[in-house]
Amino acid sequence: MILNRLRQQIDFIIEIDKLKSVVRRSYLADGSRRENSAEHSWQLAMMAVVLTEHANAPVDLLRVITMVLIHDIVEIDAGDTYIYDTQGALDKAQREQQAADRIFALLPADQAQELQSLWEEFEARETPDARFATTLDRLMPLLHNYVTAGRSWQEHGITSNQVLANNARIGEGSETLWELASNLIADSVAKGYLASASDPEDKP
Amino acid sequence: MILNRLRQQIDFIIEIDKLKSVVRRSYLADGSRRENSAEHSWQLAMMAVVLTEHANAPVDLLRVITMVLIHDIVEIDAGDTYIYDTQGALDKAQREQQAADRIFALLPADQAQELQSLWEEFEARETPDARFATTLDRLMPLLHNYVTAGRSWQEHGITSNQVLANNARIGEGSETLWELASNLIADSVAKGYLASASDPEDKP
Repeated sequence: MILNRLRQQIDFIIEIDKLKSVVRRSYLADGSRRENSAEHSWQLAMMAVVLTEHANAPVDLLRVITMVLIHDIVEIDAGDTYIYDTQGALDKAQREQQAADRIFALLPADQAQELQSLWEEFEARETPDARFATTLDRLMPLLHNYVTAGRSWQEHGITSNQVLANNARIGEGSETLWELASNLIADSVAKGYLASASDPEDKP
Repeated sequence: MILNRLRQQIDFIIEIDKLKSVVRRSYLADGSRRENSAEHSWQLAMMAVVLTEHANAPVDLLRVITMVLIHDIVEIDAGDTYIYDTQGALDKAQREQQAADRIFALLPADQAQELQSLWEEFEARETPDARFATTLDRLMPLLHNYVTAGRSWQEHGITSNQVLANNARIGEGSETLWELASNLIADSVAKGYLASASDPEDKP
């Protein structure tokens, strides 16, 4: 019985190895390659460890870390949907729900239920823990874009109004980190990393 | 003052992005490439989440997760020292201590001290939390070798007595996981993934 349970847990650990092969749009800080969702999840967990004092409301750090560790596992089946991909956004929720149903179910039932419930809480963004986890998930790509002179933004023709619209919710988890983010966005426009929505070049 | 603190925290988050470029000896489960230390750390944190019930002694899951998240950060300066590299092992402790002194010091003093102390606890392997974290760190490469038919073992001419000697300490953190590990090792020898120490081919 214990061995069967352990086998399910190990099968899950091996299955999620695939997240290392899901490539995101963001580049590493040194620009050498695009990052994958597994190493991204590690970095978010490290952000949670060092930035938790900036959360608007008290958060449970263990729950926030576990959320960011698991938040992208659904991409193993559903792929990474770029935050500015309006077409991909249409069926994203359905694709990811199916993925969650399959992947978490590899675990023993009690753990499957616990982690899937935590993933759904993250997606719903209604609790302080989920809001802060989302804040970290939004802030990190801004930092990567900033330190790579807007590389990913430029490759996808993203403008400042899109970045502002998609990231304003950072403030729901942390006013301090939203202040940082809006400064980074303004500075990115000033430095030419990010096209202003009113730039003539943006008009097709 | 708050902004200065936040800047130090963000500088640390950007600095540790370099861990994504530290390549280990282990291959991904699908054999497509060798893994890096950042994604490895993520997978260990996920192991902590799902395997904590198998620890010999009660552990504090948040501390175990934080340990495995930070345990390899020193490799940014010190590089990854292969567990079977006896030459590299000679000055490993000194190289890693210098790295820890530099990298954690990027953080505000209170956080630098907290994380460096946790890293030193992990290295000392004397507390239940550190022992269980070490158990996970040893078990994962066995799993990767097993699912890739011993690829990394074979590339480095590793034999079963080396694997047994270097991994027996898995039992210090979890008897159950050591039982799993020794079964995997025995099965790897039986399947030809891992050379037995008595195989004539091992003799130079």
